[in-house]
Amino acid sequence: QMVVWDEDGFQGRRHEFTAECPSVLELGFETVRSLKVLSGAWVGFEHAGFQGQQYVLERGEYPSWDAWGGNTAYPSERLTSFRPVACANHRDSRLTIFEQENFLGKKGELSDDYPSLQAMGWEGNEVGSFHVHSGAWVCSQFPGYRGFQYVLESDHHSGDYKHFREWGSHAQTFQVQSIRRIQQPLGYLKGCYDICLPQPPK
Amino acid sequence: QMVVWDEDGFQGRRHEFTAECPSVLELGFETVRSLKVLSGAWVGFEHAGFQGQQYVLERGEYPSWDAWGGNTAYPSERLTSFRPVACANHRDSRLTIFEQENFLGKKGELSDDYPSLQAMGWEGNEVGSFHVHSGAWVCSQFPGYRGFQYVLESDHHSGDYKHFREWGSHAQTFQVQSIRRIQQPLGYLKGCYDICLPQPPK
Repeated sequence: QMVVWDEDGFQGRRHEFTAECPSVLELGFETVRSLKVLSGAWVGFEHAGFQGQQYVLERGEYPSWDAWGGNTAYPSERLTSFRPVACANHRDSRLTIFEQENFLGKKGELSDDYPSLQAMGWEGNEVGSFHVHSGAWVCSQFPGYRGFQYVLESDHHSGDYKHFREWGSHAQTFQVQSIRRIQQPLGYLKGCYDICLPQPPK
Repeated sequence: QMVVWDEDGFQGRRHEFTAECPSVLELGFETVRSLKVLSGAWVGFEHAGFQGQQYVLERGEYPSWDAWGGNTAYPSERLTSFRPVACANHRDSRLTIFEQENFLGKKGELSDDYPSLQAMGWEGNEVGSFHVHSGAWVCSQFPGYRGFQYVLESDHHSGDYKHFREWGSHAQTFQVQSIRRIQQPLGYLKGCYDICLPQPPK
């Protein structure tokens, strides 16, 4: 579930979604200017029809455009379509990265979050292709999850992303320097996670 | 080890650091405009003397200001001082977060990365105080590691951060919606990590 507003700071017209929205223009919005994610994980797109820059939106509050999209080289300040991210199993996420397109060259297996691929031994600042075995992932242009984002899901394209054209309509580079799982817990109360929040005060 | 340039795209004057730098102004730089982190994890500061906004810099390439600092509500486009982050043990990082300042109220124990604290059961968008038991962490204003960043280390302040004034000279809010460990591997070849990169081509 997600709530969007057409002004900053959760002001102006308001609309709730529980399923994908191919265009907020049809709601009379010029663009979305603030939002709250109440459950699930979502991906927002710059343009209608799930096109353009991608922004991963996890649970929390985003009072202005800076909160989700400031850190890109070509800011457009537009957020026009949304869909939920399908995360089968966050704990069992597995991804293979390849040095070259079409699953060629050196490869690496990932099952955790990597704010710097180079720090873990990957050479260079590019990834040529991806195969998502399970889960949903977001890869980013710069270290620390900054810059352009691209969502990779095992349920899309059969998990195969063999060229940058397949990981986003706005991608024009193989540059990828950080990768992490998209967080969509099955419920921390079920003991799926090693965090125990909140606890009663002492 | 870190290399900085005074123009975008790794151009212009160049300087290498292996230890802290309280001011690039003394090198004749107006500001740093591009940088590469070759080893370790660093924190960069907006102003001289380790003051102002903080930017976590992990291994990789940062060709322009957007790469490390675009995503903040008050961009200053300045990067003037640096120091290495002391990460005793990335695998054994442990942090307690508290609802209120001075270690009061509800609390939560963290030992992993959390792109959305709310998704894991934390109520609200604020953290009142922190105690770092071990490791080095970065907390961020918005979900997905976006917005203002604050570095928290077990080796500073004895790991105690009891009010937002203690986690950064630019912090003016308790708003914290994502937290992760800072990545400084001891060496993936030693079997410290479950990633095996790079592998020989098949």
